[in-house]
Amino acid sequence: MSFFEAHRARLEQAVEACRTRIYWSAYPEIASGKIYGETAKADGEAAFKAMLGKPFDLGQSATRQVGREISPYGIALGITYPASDPDALIDASMKAGDAWARASIQDRIGVCLEIVDRINRQSFLIANAAMHTTGQAFMMAFQAAGPHAQDRALEAIAYAYDEMTRVPQAVNWTKPQGKGEPIVLDKVFRIVPRGVSLVIGCATFPTWNGYPAIFASLATGNSVIVKPHPGAILPLAITVRIGRDVLKEAGFDPNVLMLAADEADAPVTQDLAAHPGIAIVDFTGSPAFGQWVRENAATDLVFTEEAGINSIVIDSTSDFRGMCSNIGFSLSLYSGQMCTAPQNIFVPAGGIETNDGHKSYDDVAAGIATAIDKLLGDPDRAANILGTVQNEATTKRVQSARKLGRIVRDSAPVPIAGFETARTASPLLLAVDAKDDRMWGEERFGPIAFVIRTESTEEAITLASQSARRKGAITASLYSTQDAVIDKAADAFARAGVALSVNLTGGIYVNQSAAFSDYHVSGANPAGNACLTDSAFVANRFRVAPMRRQKAA
Amino acid sequence: MSFFEAHRARLEQAVEACRTRIYWSAYPEIASGKIYGETAKADGEAAFKAMLGKPFDLGQSATRQVGREISPYGIALGITYPASDPDALIDASMKAGDAWARASIQDRIGVCLEIVDRINRQSFLIANAAMHTTGQAFMMAFQAAGPHAQDRALEAIAYAYDEMTRVPQAVNWTKPQGKGEPIVLDKVFRIVPRGVSLVIGCATFPTWNGYPAIFASLATGNSVIVKPHPGAILPLAITVRIGRDVLKEAGFDPNVLMLAADEADAPVTQDLAAHPGIAIVDFTGSPAFGQWVRENAATDLVFTEEAGINSIVIDSTSDFRGMCSNIGFSLSLYSGQMCTAPQNIFVPAGGIETNDGHKSYDDVAAGIATAIDKLLGDPDRAANILGTVQNEATTKRVQSARKLGRIVRDSAPVPIAGFETARTASPLLLAVDAKDDRMWGEERFGPIAFVIRTESTEEAITLASQSARRKGAITASLYSTQDAVIDKAADAFARAGVALSVNLTGGIYVNQSAAFSDYHVSGANPAGNACLTDSAFVANRFRVAPMRRQKAA
Repeated sequence: MSFFEAHRARLEQAVEACRTRIYWSAYPEIASGKIYGETAKADGEAAFKAMLGKPFDLGQSATRQVGREISPYGIALGITYPASDPDALIDASMKAGDAWARASIQDRIGVCLEIVDRINRQSFLIANAAMHTTGQAFMMAFQAAGPHAQDRALEAIAYAYDEMTRVPQAVNWTKPQGKGEPIVLDKVFRIVPRGVSLVIGCATFPTWNGYPAIFASLATGNSVIVKPHPGAILPLAITVRIGRDVLKEAGFDPNVLMLAADEADAPVTQDLAAHPGIAIVDFTGSPAFGQWVRENAATDLVFTEEAGINSIVIDSTSDFRGMCSNIGFSLSLYSGQMCTAPQNIFVPAGGIETNDGHKSYDDVAAGIATAIDKLLGDPDRAANILGTVQNEATTKRVQSARKLGRIVRDSAPVPIAGFETARTASPLLLAVDAKDDRMWGEERFGPIAFVIRTESTEEAITLASQSARRKGAITASLYSTQDAVIDKAADAFARAGVALSVNLTGGIYVNQSAAFSDYHVSGANPAGNACLTDSAFVANRFRVAPMRRQKAA
Repeated sequence: MSFFEAHRARLEQAVEACRTRIYWSAYPEIASGKIYGETAKADGEAAFKAMLGKPFDLGQSATRQVGREISPYGIALGITYPASDPDALIDASMKAGDAWARASIQDRIGVCLEIVDRINRQSFLIANAAMHTTGQAFMMAFQAAGPHAQDRALEAIAYAYDEMTRVPQAVNWTKPQGKGEPIVLDKVFRIVPRGVSLVIGCATFPTWNGYPAIFASLATGNSVIVKPHPGAILPLAITVRIGRDVLKEAGFDPNVLMLAADEADAPVTQDLAAHPGIAIVDFTGSPAFGQWVRENAATDLVFTEEAGINSIVIDSTSDFRGMCSNIGFSLSLYSGQMCTAPQNIFVPAGGIETNDGHKSYDDVAAGIATAIDKLLGDPDRAANILGTVQNEATTKRVQSARKLGRIVRDSAPVPIAGFETARTASPLLLAVDAKDDRMWGEERFGPIAFVIRTESTEEAITLASQSARRKGAITASLYSTQDAVIDKAADAFARAGVALSVNLTGGIYVNQSAAFSDYHVSGANPAGNACLTDSAFVANRFRVAPMRRQKAA
């Protein structure tokens, strides 16, 4: 059975899920031995440890080895990766891309689905790799870098398949000519890819943010060069290796999928992005570098997820403790290093109405602080939620942020058993006034949040949505018992292109974006120029080359 | 009955046609009184004449009147149009756009369909307006600026409708939690437009090239500013006026659709395109200005149709006379001023095999020249096929091109009865060698064609497809009786992103691109960065703003 036939049922379910956007998932998020095999956890850890301190074998030609990843948990990985000059990489990618471009939709989609399936079987290995590069706690690394990222890969493949199969392969075109003979043309429509696709990864979610682009480009016939962040190479190197294995098995040149690793002090991203051989660029990273990519990439076809400032507006609630716990968790999860994590919490100066009676501005701030303290009270649980801080710059940012407002809850290192030198920081919560927008009006990446005193809910909605328009935002959150307030916020945040969550309590958080249902990034504000989960994300990665042929008389 | 319901059946047929790409048309191309009304022709001409020498009433506020259109048939139109500063136009467009953005998909699509329907009823007026701005012959002006352009408008609306309705409006998302209560979110997905859309028109096909962008942007909720070419304002002014009438009737601010006319010596296009208030730019015009737009527009969302050099490769034929006639017509139609018209005809030095026996290179060149002479032998027929030359620069180009090769057929003015000062030129046919690529390797817009002597068919395919990659091409044409040659050409032109026509004889020409079936421009070579008839052309004109709301416990 072909790869395509083997995975066809799952593909069709995925296409259907993208349409209906009901809850659906292909890859189980529970790290259970019953699902992944009783030895999977131990095998994954052993495989990871066996990689440490050695050159990583990609079967990719190289002029040198690079790589200096250091785990935020305190371990130097010591793994090196093959590296070549941009010209050589792009030449090899172009050469390999020829046959890939000519392959049938089914053959390409089949290869992509098989790659994701094999990645899924390595979820525990990838969890270890993600944990020791992104610094996430193990369970989060398993889910976000494993099954959740795999679902996102499948989502991109499903969009690509749906989009390509909307183009008929052939049609007989018969135009009546009154009483004369009709004009008859046989038309054939061929899918042609753009060329070489460059995917620039980030350090915090290398697979979750990288897979949509990698698989959207591969599925539509482009060859792909994956440029990982120098701090998080391994999860994508494992991905590329699995991909190359499947490509080879299917009879393709494995250089359809290549890795372009580098080190922070000898970066290659700019040379690659500006190379005239590059046809598509996908970028996840900072707005500063994102702007450079948008302005200087060799192609206009650039998809970015940059960054924004996410807000919570608190108007009223029927579950004060549930709200505070939910917000506390959102601020703590992966130490605030998610692109969907909130930074700014707007609270009316006059306080809010709740199921526990009126709560003042200070009560609300204290409620959130207490919820964080309770959540992180148990050291093991704290470590499992916070993980570590990926980048040294983030811990410095937390330190210097302490003077930006009145400290409601201070940040502190959090010991992690077995990793004494891990880089950690619990959430810093600062009280500021709405007028102090020099403090809260900039992105402060990491576990830094502001409780902002506003005149009213209306002012809060205005400030939060204006900030989204100016500086970008991916998520917003609202707590209100009033439908009129919810409607007003829905209008304002929709116009600002922000995904709004309302009244979240319990086990669902504003940070979470579900594959097959949520639209991740709107593309409608500076947080990114593209949505990663819609047809616009795939439709332009290929073109249609038509041929029409007159029937011989 | 709402506009949407009134036109729903046609819309659904159009959506279906875009999928199947069989022959389909909504608006009859035959300028018959039986279809359009017995007085329609006279009424259209009278309405056109009544517009001459007067200010054009758009109901659009203005600080001054502009407009200096001169018909290539020799008449100064003397019509002036309201003009305002870019800031004022964009402010008004933004203001009007608010309610338009919030309207339902059905309401917006209904308005768009009603506009096209009313435009159709004015096809004879638009034919006169197009004839005396583009310089096309009346019948071509009727078809290309009338029903064919209307079909393309409907096509864009159908794509937009299909794309927007693929996003569910609402969904209940229920995630199981093992033995616990499931997490339940009510999700609402709102379509949000980009903002103000600027459509920059051309002088040769103002409606045919303008309508896809205008209606794709309107349908997806953007307000639209139409910037016509200073030489071809009237067809788009009539369009905008009809659009504004329908918008007003439907309760919208007519400034959802505005005109930004200017004059050649005081152009406003650059100020508009670079204005930060512009969210989408569609451009049809020269590669030089196209490059400026791509590099300097205030937005990255730029769709262009620029220009290219279209080729014919002659390998062999089973209908030599049919081939020569077909090519002769393609070179003559609208004096070679179509973006789809061929310029370069590659013929092997050793000649070709045909149903009339072997034909030398010179026989083929002479055959085409003779076919042109016969086609244009009757002065009335010549005028009806050639029309006039839109721009003085084109007649000058024809003159100076005469020294670029050996003249096989010379260009000459063609008298048009009733229009003694019309600007005309019949096709110039030049013989050159493949190595003379300084001659044939540049775009020579207008009735200028080269018969290029090549070593072989293989060299011809290589040269033509390489030229397409470097300089762009929208169409290519091949004559061959050999399937192996056809396959080779199909591969080469597909990789170059060119639409290939094979063995056209009789009443279908390489210049013709049929709505609902042909993909017009591939977007895959320098002739344009977008296809005007695919989902990528609409999918990025709107974004999705999601809201998810937890069910109260």
